[in-house]
Amino acid sequence: MKGVLLSRNPDLQIVDITHSIRPQDIRHGAIVVDDVCHRFPPRTIHVVVVDPGVGTQREVVFAKLGAQRYVAPNNGLLTLAALRTPPDLIVAVTNRLYFLPEVAPTFHGRDIMAPTAAHISLGLHPERLGPRLDSLISIPAIDAVAEPTRILGRVLQIDSFGNVVTNISAQQWSLVPTGLPVRVCCNSHEVTEIVATYGQRPPGTIVALLGSSGRLEVAEVNGNAAARLGITEDQEVTVTW
Amino acid sequence: MKGVLLSRNPDLQIVDITHSIRPQDIRHGAIVVDDVCHRFPPRTIHVVVVDPGVGTQREVVFAKLGAQRYVAPNNGLLTLAALRTPPDLIVAVTNRLYFLPEVAPTFHGRDIMAPTAAHISLGLHPERLGPRLDSLISIPAIDAVAEPTRILGRVLQIDSFGNVVTNISAQQWSLVPTGLPVRVCCNSHEVTEIVATYGQRPPGTIVALLGSSGRLEVAEVNGNAAARLGITEDQEVTVTW
Amino acid sequence: MKGVLLSRNPDLQIVDITHSIRPQDIRHGAIVVDDVCHRFPPRTIHVVVVDPGVGTQREVVFAKLGAQRYVAPNNGLLTLAALRTPPDLIVAVTNRLYFLPEVAPTFHGRDIMAPTAAHISLGLHPERLGPRLDSLISIPAIDAVAEPTRILGRVLQIDSFGNVVTNISAQQWSLVPTGLPVRVCCNSHEVTEIVATYGQRPPGTIVALLGSSGRLEVAEVNGNAAARLGITEDQEVTVTW
Repeated sequence: MKGVLLSRNPDLQIVDITHSIRPQDIRHGAIVVDDVCHRFPPRTIHVVVVDPGVGTQREVVFAKLGAQRYVAPNNGLLTLAALRTPPDLIVAVTNRLYFLPEVAPTFHGRDIMAPTAAHISLGLHPERLGPRLDSLISIPAIDAVAEPTRILGRVLQIDSFGNVVTNISAQQWSLVPTGLPVRVCCNSHEVTEIVATYGQRPPGTIVALLGSSGRLEVAEVNGNAAARLGITEDQEVTVTW
Repeated sequence: MKGVLLSRNPDLQIVDITHSIRPQDIRHGAIVVDDVCHRFPPRTIHVVVVDPGVGTQREVVFAKLGAQRYVAPNNGLLTLAALRTPPDLIVAVTNRLYFLPEVAPTFHGRDIMAPTAAHISLGLHPERLGPRLDSLISIPAIDAVAEPTRILGRVLQIDSFGNVVTNISAQQWSLVPTGLPVRVCCNSHEVTEIVATYGQRPPGTIVALLGSSGRLEVAEVNGNAAARLGITEDQEVTVTW
Repeated sequence: MKGVLLSRNPDLQIVDITHSIRPQDIRHGAIVVDDVCHRFPPRTIHVVVVDPGVGTQREVVFAKLGAQRYVAPNNGLLTLAALRTPPDLIVAVTNRLYFLPEVAPTFHGRDIMAPTAAHISLGLHPERLGPRLDSLISIPAIDAVAEPTRILGRVLQIDSFGNVVTNISAQQWSLVPTGLPVRVCCNSHEVTEIVATYGQRPPGTIVALLGSSGRLEVAEVNGNAAARLGITEDQEVTVTW
């Protein structure tokens, strides 16, 4: 993909975000897109490929979300980013003029998305890529539910440090009344040490905190909470007070 | 290596292809070089280091294969790329004028290849690097054999998705008559679902298809075929019809 | 972090050194900083984040070590680099003017170090970042001890090839008299094959050699010495003659 990008536009600056999305895991990709892409300069083009449906009827899309631009399969990868910043423009990428001459049915990242993104970077108007679409495909809601006396959530992902990242948002977490004892429960473990950062407790302590991407996390200070507590993705997380 | 490259030519644009070649695995490196490097713009310099013989009598070479240029150990890494595009020029890199002042016997990538590549990028004529060579070292043939009623191949590599990539080429695969039932056999498993892309069958189906690098693959839709079928590199693969 | 850097200075050239430092392992980070950073062009800014104390009272520092500049947590990461090249200038990074508007207590790399480094790259004078410091925090000595008839060291790290990298330096190794049989002992294994490079012995041989970063190593030719000999970090290594 990098070779194709540079062959079409040698002046491109290519930046790697990650090559560690779990294979086929659209939700994992959607979380990273949401956390990271809005930090880039305006008019960055994000080429995002987590693509289990490659070669089937699923579309490739160009989407403009505020100042950021995306070329991606239309499979839900942009769900969370589009909740943060609603799309200004969505176009189905169908114009073969901008594809590689031969398109392998198993690698649209290389043969469709990379050359299309390169043409956009050269100033091609996105509406030349294909017909406008009204909306993006979304993956099912991954929001937590705030009730009067508790918040019901789930484990969204285990990060590379073993921190347990939940789908409970900063806004939901702010609903917890101050001054009361709070319990964060997951996989039969109960966490009562609520902190602002890892280093506020000794190594080995299990803590709960609001993480840097604005989600409630369970972490082990200088350790791997997921491994220690046997927590895996999708498990239920309950906050009570 | 990146520091050495930029110290000699601060205007270089460095692009990472991969840091995940299995240690010492020249064949793995040769496959990636062949798949990827020809996609880059003309006059790209590819610095390729998979180098189990570092510090011994094996040479470092500069090679020009069509529009692409390479600096690599002369150990077979360029075998497949040179089959695709025969060399126009091969030079043994022996001129210490372009090396780092001190050359560690265990890291020629940093001390010989990187500074040499930087000098080439600055316009140094390759013939200044050392004497011309007539040919590159090759690794043993890794071609499949097409017979009148079957193709005999092997597993070339397991990719990061667990897809089983064989040494059976698109050209050999095209010899299979259409309209007859086809069987792809490996490790006592028989695959009869022949598809164009993964998504044509439900998740969990084992399929055979022509992959994006032009080689026959066995894959599990949204899964890891190698793990599920217990297939490892070098096992025999037979196509019959 | 890359997005923040480019948002403040779109002309930056970002180079990845590694994303594979073991979580929280300051010593591992310090070794890589020492091996790699001095190879870069003068005035490179190295943003180094291995940061188990994030959000606590530990400082963020700017340090100038000869021609190289660093933005890092003040937690020992620069210990070895500062032994190689003593600091010319150390400044505590406290001026919130150059931080992101909101600072998450768990990700100073993104919210403090990246924007500060971008401002430095734009020409900001480092003394604008905060008050001068006299010294950097150091991690405990990880030096080997040379005695009249032996050298007592430890395993510093296992590299990605499985080579056992010790804390015995080139200078200490040069004290071993030539012409006498030498034994390198670790985890009850005794290595007597002393070589200049891996390829001087057949595959599978266990050898000792001076590695490319100037430290004594134990390696298996074309293999993984640490796995084969059961050697882990911090084990004792003794050289006798």
